[in-house]
Amino acid sequence: MSHAGLTRALKAWSTDPAELARVSVDRSGTVPDGLPDLVVFARDVDDVRRTVSYAAARGVPVVPRGAGSGVAGGAVAGAGAIVLDLSGLDRIAEIRPDDAIAVVEPGVVTADLDAAAAAHGLRYAPDPASAAFSTIGGNIATNAGGLRCVKYGVTRDAVLAVDAVLGDGTLVRTGRRTVKGVTGYDLTGLLVGSEGTLGVIVGATLRLSPLPAATATAGAFFATAEDAVAAVTALQRRGLRPSTAELLDRATLVAIDQAQGGDLHTRGQVFLLLQTDGHGAEAELAEAERVLRPLATSVETTTDPVVADRLVATRRAALPAVERHGRVLIEDIAVPRSQIAGTVAAVERIAASTGVRIFVFAHVGDGNLHPIVLAGSAPPEQVDLAVAAVFEHALSVGGTLTGEHGVGTLKRPWLAAELGDPVLDLHRRIKAVFDPAGILNPGKAI
Amino acid sequence: MSHAGLTRALKAWSTDPAELARVSVDRSGTVPDGLPDLVVFARDVDDVRRTVSYAAARGVPVVPRGAGSGVAGGAVAGAGAIVLDLSGLDRIAEIRPDDAIAVVEPGVVTADLDAAAAAHGLRYAPDPASAAFSTIGGNIATNAGGLRCVKYGVTRDAVLAVDAVLGDGTLVRTGRRTVKGVTGYDLTGLLVGSEGTLGVIVGATLRLSPLPAATATAGAFFATAEDAVAAVTALQRRGLRPSTAELLDRATLVAIDQAQGGDLHTRGQVFLLLQTDGHGAEAELAEAERVLRPLATSVETTTDPVVADRLVATRRAALPAVERHGRVLIEDIAVPRSQIAGTVAAVERIAASTGVRIFVFAHVGDGNLHPIVLAGSAPPEQVDLAVAAVFEHALSVGGTLTGEHGVGTLKRPWLAAELGDPVLDLHRRIKAVFDPAGILNPGKAI
Ligand SMILES: Cc1cc2nc3c(=O)[nH]c(=O)nc-3n(C[C@H](O)[C@H](O)[C@H](O)COP(=O)(O)OP(=O)(O)OC[C@H]3O[C@@H](n4cnc5c(N)ncnc54)[C@H](O)[C@@H]3O)c2cc1C
Ligand SMILES: Cc1cc2nc3c(=O)[nH]c(=O)nc-3n(C[C@H](O)[C@H](O)[C@H](O)COP(=O)(O)OP(=O)(O)OC[C@H]3O[C@@H](n4cnc5c(N)ncnc54)[C@H](O)[C@@H]3O)c2cc1C
Repeated sequence: MSHAGLTRALKAWSTDPAELARVSVDRSGTVPDGLPDLVVFARDVDDVRRTVSYAAARGVPVVPRGAGSGVAGGAVAGAGAIVLDLSGLDRIAEIRPDDAIAVVEPGVVTADLDAAAAAHGLRYAPDPASAAFSTIGGNIATNAGGLRCVKYGVTRDAVLAVDAVLGDGTLVRTGRRTVKGVTGYDLTGLLVGSEGTLGVIVGATLRLSPLPAATATAGAFFATAEDAVAAVTALQRRGLRPSTAELLDRATLVAIDQAQGGDLHTRGQVFLLLQTDGHGAEAELAEAERVLRPLATSVETTTDPVVADRLVATRRAALPAVERHGRVLIEDIAVPRSQIAGTVAAVERIAASTGVRIFVFAHVGDGNLHPIVLAGSAPPEQVDLAVAAVFEHALSVGGTLTGEHGVGTLKRPWLAAELGDPVLDLHRRIKAVFDPAGILNPGKAI
Repeated sequence: MSHAGLTRALKAWSTDPAELARVSVDRSGTVPDGLPDLVVFARDVDDVRRTVSYAAARGVPVVPRGAGSGVAGGAVAGAGAIVLDLSGLDRIAEIRPDDAIAVVEPGVVTADLDAAAAAHGLRYAPDPASAAFSTIGGNIATNAGGLRCVKYGVTRDAVLAVDAVLGDGTLVRTGRRTVKGVTGYDLTGLLVGSEGTLGVIVGATLRLSPLPAATATAGAFFATAEDAVAAVTALQRRGLRPSTAELLDRATLVAIDQAQGGDLHTRGQVFLLLQTDGHGAEAELAEAERVLRPLATSVETTTDPVVADRLVATRRAALPAVERHGRVLIEDIAVPRSQIAGTVAAVERIAASTGVRIFVFAHVGDGNLHPIVLAGSAPPEQVDLAVAAVFEHALSVGGTLTGEHGVGTLKRPWLAAELGDPVLDLHRRIKAVFDPAGILNPGKAI
């Protein structure tokens, strides 16, 4: 379909097949059914409103897109769709150090905001591992998490207000510039995590927080995941608040050693990276170490940034090390804290029984596990079986399909199992309020 | 209207006028237009579903009610309404120390949950000053705040899942038992703060947090509100995270002195109560003291519980001291941090120009101010003028009508000024999804 009636009024757009191919996929590996009609490169809010209104009048699907770094298929766009690329709306409009807020456009790259805040002694706390390229709009749309979330909360906790273009082209501003406020329903929180299905985020007011005065780091090895999880639970129960608590399982340690020629996997079955921050960082880590020691096979602590970086590098090396073995499916379940160790064991059992290679990284402090499934390690039916078994396990222990990546297209088949039909029905009716024509990212998220 | 068709199926209810009068009001002073028809004392979820379904079929308003401690008129019920009293659903169903969660019925008194958690070394962080009598259901419906919110967040941050009966009698469960999760829209967050207009909360899964290892307390006096606010802002910018930061203005100090025969108001114009908690509490307070000292006229710090209690008692004494002078309107605006001192000054100017006595308490760390208006201190028109001027000021500096108490009936006339018509319209359409018959607390909140 030609969209000349729209493009005539726009500043930047493309129908070049190479360009369309690039903007039709994200990092999930999901293959769209053909190329979208058009990509609109929004240069201002009017471009967004115009595109959405045009599409609403004609029933054309609009797929909002940030950096396309999503791993759930949320930004995947097929034949007949218009991709609405927000990455060009990348202005940081305000940073107010005294109010500890920033006002930004949706295309601002997460790390760029963090850097701009740092110039004022502040930071943007949510730190997805994709911060170097993901956009704030994408982070908001997926309610992105990251390593620091265990102490500082997820994206939703950092979003005070959003400007959104609804499915009929209306521009609304929800929320406020204050930390607290209860006037009206929490529409801001509702838009956060809605994966482009309720509105196109065209602006946001975000909380910033002070850069921590100090950071202390520990790397520890454990004989079992139970021991590692028990240690983290014990220190949380004592009121210690790690700013990072990351677990890598044995399969991952082996992969890192294969990539780097190291001997991590000889030091324990499970690696735990722990950080504390703030004025009491060192004292807090010392206290944490007392808890870890009796349960760990070894513990190394440091406040030296060089040593810390070596310990953090182990965590950073995990995904690239696994990806050397082929294409991966990054799963993202979350379970109650008491179920973490059992879930690591369950994933190992599932891997063994299906013959699929699975590596586990976990934001262990908040029960969010990433079973990384090596797609080519077994026949596709076996891979499907393994993934299904992982989801089933998560739900059976009171967990969820996705802790931070979103439902996108990939997890939709499982949605009803988690939410139940009455709640899913409520979702559809809310969607109809925000997007009566059903054009905003249809077939995604709900 | 007789509701025999309903009451026949219920376990406990009343049409006794004294009982109806008691359950028709809250603590706002709002006078209902006549007595409600009936009060239902829910004994189980079936009673709730039955009442709501019955009312939906007949278009009868249902006013959910916890302890009736609200100060916005949210639980006020007039002629023709059925009051649905949830206070009898007061079971704590589960406390899971390892998962740090509790599962409760809505009528559980806030302080009772906190006490039950304490038996496991945990606590329920949100601590409205009404905790001794308010219910969790009421706290959820109003998204209640409290002193600890500046560090630990408001009620919404503590609610992982809710069971709610929608306006057609459907029972839904939103959310999950995990700390993180992004499957579906944030319906839990939407129900929190909806003041009984979207669903009746009949159960909740709540986050608990560890009791802090230690607490340290400071009481400081300042020559001006600017100095006090500057001190709090400065310490927050350094990454210090007070667990309490409460300000009392001069008018309040005078009232406390009048009540207690003390000399607080001679020590400074403004009192600041500051607490830090956790493993580094004492070190953090020492650091905070270094920031306060140059700005304060005096600072007293302590880790001795007896001394701390004396300092905290000053804050606790504020409302009773003011209430000795007559009926009060407890306002509840919130403003961006940089506007707090200016707002205290604006309130003083408004008091002077209208002749209305106003006392200011503030959760200063999060910009939430309670201008306490002495209702009988001036003619009603002047009081109305003063309240209007306070709201106008809040909105003009990017603030909000209500930081934690809710809109109820009292703040509805101001709603459109804050939200704007398109957003208000969105509220109405969301309400229609949850409550098609429009029977859940009509005329409140939105
Ligand atoms: C190496 C790597 C590491 C990662 N690490 C993390 C991690 O630690 N934590 C985490 O949570 N995720 C992580 N991710 C996933 C991904 O980066 C996040 O989901 C991120 O928030 C997506 O941002 P984006 O700008 O790339 O959005 P996109 O991928 O472009 O879009 C994601 C979804 O948001 C919608 N969307 C995008 N922009 C808007 C907008 N302005 N308005 C409305 N809807 C919009 C899209 O339609 C889509 O549904 C990682 C991905 C990779 C490749
Ligand atoms: C002395 C005093 C101090 C206070 N201090 C604070 C404070 O520090 N912070 C603060 O935030 N508030 C404070 N409040 C106000 C009040 O206590 C809170 O708003 C509290 O959350 C109300 O709880 P409740 O059980 O009394 O609810 P109610 O007053 O009975 O109801 C409040 C609202 O919630 C709705 N509701 C109640 N239960 C349910 C349910 N189960 N399902 C759906 N809707 C429901 C009602 O319809 C109404 O709209 C204070 C009040 C007093 C009198």
